[in-house]
Amino acid sequence: MTMPTPPTGVVPPVCTPLTPDREVDTSSLTRLVDHLVTGGVDALFVLGSTSEVAYLTDRQRTLVVDTVVRHVAGQLPVLAGAIDTTTPRVLDRARAVVESGADAVVVTAPFYTRTHPAEIARHFRLVARDCAVPVVAYDIPMAVHSKLPAELVLELAGDGVLAGLKDSSGDEGAFRRVVLGKRAEPGLAGFAVLTGSEVTVDSALAMGADGVVPGLGNVDPAGYVRLYRACRDGDWARARAEQERLCGLFGMVTVGDPGRMGGSSAALGAFKAALHLRGVIDCPATAEPQIPLSAAETERVGKHLATAGLL
Amino acid sequence: MTMPTPPTGVVPPVCTPLTPDREVDTSSLTRLVDHLVTGGVDALFVLGSTSEVAYLTDRQRTLVVDTVVRHVAGQLPVLAGAIDTTTPRVLDRARAVVESGADAVVVTAPFYTRTHPAEIARHFRLVARDCAVPVVAYDIPMAVHSKLPAELVLELAGDGVLAGLKDSSGDEGAFRRVVLGKRAEPGLAGFAVLTGSEVTVDSALAMGADGVVPGLGNVDPAGYVRLYRACRDGDWARARAEQERLCGLFGMVTVGDPGRMGGSSAALGAFKAALHLRGVIDCPATAEPQIPLSAAETERVGKHLATAGLL
Amino acid sequence: MTMPTPPTGVVPPVCTPLTPDREVDTSSLTRLVDHLVTGGVDALFVLGSTSEVAYLTDRQRTLVVDTVVRHVAGQLPVLAGAIDTTTPRVLDRARAVVESGADAVVVTAPFYTRTHPAEIARHFRLVARDCAVPVVAYDIPMAVHSKLPAELVLELAGDGVLAGLKDSSGDEGAFRRVVLGKRAEPGLAGFAVLTGSEVTVDSALAMGADGVVPGLGNVDPAGYVRLYRACRDGDWARARAEQERLCGLFGMVTVGDPGRMGGSSAALGAFKAALHLRGVIDCPATAEPQIPLSAAETERVGKHLATAGLL
Amino acid sequence: MTMPTPPTGVVPPVCTPLTPDREVDTSSLTRLVDHLVTGGVDALFVLGSTSEVAYLTDRQRTLVVDTVVRHVAGQLPVLAGAIDTTTPRVLDRARAVVESGADAVVVTAPFYTRTHPAEIARHFRLVARDCAVPVVAYDIPMAVHSKLPAELVLELAGDGVLAGLKDSSGDEGAFRRVVLGKRAEPGLAGFAVLTGSEVTVDSALAMGADGVVPGLGNVDPAGYVRLYRACRDGDWARARAEQERLCGLFGMVTVGDPGRMGGSSAALGAFKAALHLRGVIDCPATAEPQIPLSAAETERVGKHLATAGLL
Repeated sequence: MTMPTPPTGVVPPVCTPLTPDREVDTSSLTRLVDHLVTGGVDALFVLGSTSEVAYLTDRQRTLVVDTVVRHVAGQLPVLAGAIDTTTPRVLDRARAVVESGADAVVVTAPFYTRTHPAEIARHFRLVARDCAVPVVAYDIPMAVHSKLPAELVLELAGDGVLAGLKDSSGDEGAFRRVVLGKRAEPGLAGFAVLTGSEVTVDSALAMGADGVVPGLGNVDPAGYVRLYRACRDGDWARARAEQERLCGLFGMVTVGDPGRMGGSSAALGAFKAALHLRGVIDCPATAEPQIPLSAAETERVGKHLATAGLL
Repeated sequence: MTMPTPPTGVVPPVCTPLTPDREVDTSSLTRLVDHLVTGGVDALFVLGSTSEVAYLTDRQRTLVVDTVVRHVAGQLPVLAGAIDTTTPRVLDRARAVVESGADAVVVTAPFYTRTHPAEIARHFRLVARDCAVPVVAYDIPMAVHSKLPAELVLELAGDGVLAGLKDSSGDEGAFRRVVLGKRAEPGLAGFAVLTGSEVTVDSALAMGADGVVPGLGNVDPAGYVRLYRACRDGDWARARAEQERLCGLFGMVTVGDPGRMGGSSAALGAFKAALHLRGVIDCPATAEPQIPLSAAETERVGKHLATAGLL
Repeated sequence: MTMPTPPTGVVPPVCTPLTPDREVDTSSLTRLVDHLVTGGVDALFVLGSTSEVAYLTDRQRTLVVDTVVRHVAGQLPVLAGAIDTTTPRVLDRARAVVESGADAVVVTAPFYTRTHPAEIARHFRLVARDCAVPVVAYDIPMAVHSKLPAELVLELAGDGVLAGLKDSSGDEGAFRRVVLGKRAEPGLAGFAVLTGSEVTVDSALAMGADGVVPGLGNVDPAGYVRLYRACRDGDWARARAEQERLCGLFGMVTVGDPGRMGGSSAALGAFKAALHLRGVIDCPATAEPQIPLSAAETERVGKHLATAGLL
Repeated sequence: MTMPTPPTGVVPPVCTPLTPDREVDTSSLTRLVDHLVTGGVDALFVLGSTSEVAYLTDRQRTLVVDTVVRHVAGQLPVLAGAIDTTTPRVLDRARAVVESGADAVVVTAPFYTRTHPAEIARHFRLVARDCAVPVVAYDIPMAVHSKLPAELVLELAGDGVLAGLKDSSGDEGAFRRVVLGKRAEPGLAGFAVLTGSEVTVDSALAMGADGVVPGLGNVDPAGYVRLYRACRDGDWARARAEQERLCGLFGMVTVGDPGRMGGSSAALGAFKAALHLRGVIDCPATAEPQIPLSAAETERVGKHLATAGLL
């Protein structure tokens, strides 16, 4: 089996624009894809947490992948989440996105159940065995309540089970173990190590990461592309300046009142409000049962955009 | 809208027998249903955690509900889980089980996402609004990583959103707040408060609970029915003796080596091994990626059965 | 070594009254002791979580034990917490309370450090080896962030390391495993299994527990004594009625605004406000950095007292 | 009040060498201090987690600070932990270390109790009000089970309550918010932001951190000093090479079998084994109830030293 290299560089997790009655707004979605492609990104990741995958029905999920794959028409690789609780359900979701034309699937550890490292390993092995495209592991303890151990990731990479890692754990020490473990093993040259952080991209790339999957990249793809290129050029001062501008912009995820809404509502609400304010999407609605930003909160998102030079 | 009273009494969460290649074994499933009905249970709960709902594909889930509803043919009410991450997905699952003939749906708080009590309330309100049958809340923090506050449960019950509660939190103090809150409010007389515990059923019924949803009830339905009746008769000494026998039997969930497998593998593996040893189902397999019990572990399940007088 | 049986029955964890400038108010403390003794309790537990042990300096801790031991003058046994992070520090605290005359020490698992079941076992073994009085294990995961496994408690009891268990875990299923494990082993007849719950005392005693350590017992010792006696008499209807009255009274711990203060401030603040309103202590102050109840919150404590017939 | 700037640069948390019977080995301790000073470190931090502060009695704690302060004799600043559960106890510990001559105290959020952000703020304000030397906040969620919010740290810094932050949270995104928040506020120029990470020091310094408090710095102080200087010189390639060598060395904390011991035993056991193998301290014993490394595990520590060029 030849394992095609998964995408590297800037790979934004694409937001899913919704209509006011919570249907997928495909014309806003294709405008968003154009906005990202124009921004210079290297690949797209649909049906991740930032895409509100946990809130989309199966029909809507398929509509999203179909729409994006058809629209990019091979210009860029499209990764798609196959996010579900356990192996048989993930395989069903993986088949669906592969049928829609996804180039790779992104898969988490089992959730909802009480799991174990041995079961997590078995899960990825079984998914990869039966999946027609490369599998990227999605390490997101905030959602699945277990952390993928660095050693397990490297073992599965070495066995050809995993083609990449998207690390949204926020644990930069463990991330670095994967980066260094990859470098120590020539056979892992094609394994893609991607950070899901918005605010430590320069650090991650300086360590040797292959790319970044920033939710905030929906709002400012060109900024992340500049950041990525500065890092690749070894111009760390320029990278740091760009990263710090993006850190300021990322402050938008804190405008939602934590006494009134959860973290997903606040972060996804801010990204969508920003895309709406920038004229990319028609409606900033997030899926149910998320709580919408207030008018005052939305105004503060606008101030973040203005400060970052985006309005 | 008249809200039909949900079932009370002994309501086992029905295991899903699988074939060696992990397909639903419908003939074992109907034999298991007969075993439960013969045991005297009051209703059945399919597609809960004990049913391995998190491991069944949508097709398998529908096959399970169809099979059970057709087989019980109205002799007993059938509750069905509509277990998924958020409102739109839960509504899809609820429609499916209602179409298959479920008499009520059982729904958890959102999971995978970072949620908030206000979003949990909104979730249940939206599900109940669009669902054709009564909604029972499923409080299972171990799986969804948030606890349903007693006050929220009572508020939603008072508003006609919830028809019942299945409490698998293990927090007997909070459970009692719901029981006492219900009693204080005449309008909540029809609200069913059910414990998901196997080992504190006598306590829960003494407090005033309406019923019990014991996973171990698959293995010994008659035992739980005797326990329930002893409690209803106010014969607490008899209830305690029966409960203590069942506590001993429940020790089977600890035979699986925790160094080698997770808690779901151990508990569901033990229940299925016991059903296989008792001749109720053809194969003890659990779904992927769970780790099977070893031969020695299965033998220890047999000893638990023998001690409890079930072999 | 003969292991003296630790106290059973009603063993309130004694609040530590403070002056407005946060010094131990010894005259209020002895009045509180009189209030408890008059209420009919079987023993006293000082320097537990309800005593604000985590907020008292070593000097204040010693003053508390000295004051209480001298005042009860052998009428009742006095247990004392030796609450600190690890073995050497716990031993220092144990020596101090033994010197003050405590009849037994109460000890948690290690905290602050990243511990392990093998280290927890070693901790209790070393403490018991070097401690002149019986050791009672204090299972309080909310504080120490690990749970004492039932099997470990029974093993340590069997080896004469532990003389009793105070279970504040809220996990009634695990508590029952200890109760049943004790009963199965004749050598454990003297091992005291105590629940720390205020609201499931009838359940715990019906299961076979030996006693109860209720923080709310400061406010209404006579109520817990009546409850205990009703259980010992096997009059479960009377027990349940008394317990339900106490459950209503326990509602006082929710009057403190959780947006403004933590759970310790709310619970200890309510107990002290109630003791102050009942005229038992001079000042309701809690130790720094706890947040005081507002006047309106204190008024609601008073309503709980009135409803329970205590004002 | 003028708030003296706390130390920056490389500030190792000094291990506490013990004799085989677990007494403080003061001659090994002074040798260790010489080893660190010779290595070129900028200051010393005693009585932190790496010093086994949670395992030392009050007498031993005082002996440690006295010994180190007397031995360094003003050559370097000495920070000391005042690690205890709440405000009154922390103040007692702070007074003790100030009396011994510590130049600053390091203080965590309250632990063991159920706390709240408002109580955490009040705690630091009260400690700083009554403490004669500058207060550095110690953010260590792994130990205290709450995270210091970046905004709270900045607010307390702005009010002159905190002189610095030692961040052992592993959350580099939140760390960066503090670094950037400090830079945005000219009044905070003297506030020292220190990372407690061993493996992302180059990243933290590139972001703008003021220093590092690496436990592994006991083993290889010269390595961390070279790393710090390379960063200060802006020689990121040299910094990265040094950091990666130290990442390899840090692998020693994983030699202890996690099935047999907790994370503190494994990490502190490895550091002490390495110091013993390097001839700096006489005995590698860790305090009770930690589990010692086996001979085979110690041998693997030696291999890590050899690979890093330290044996």
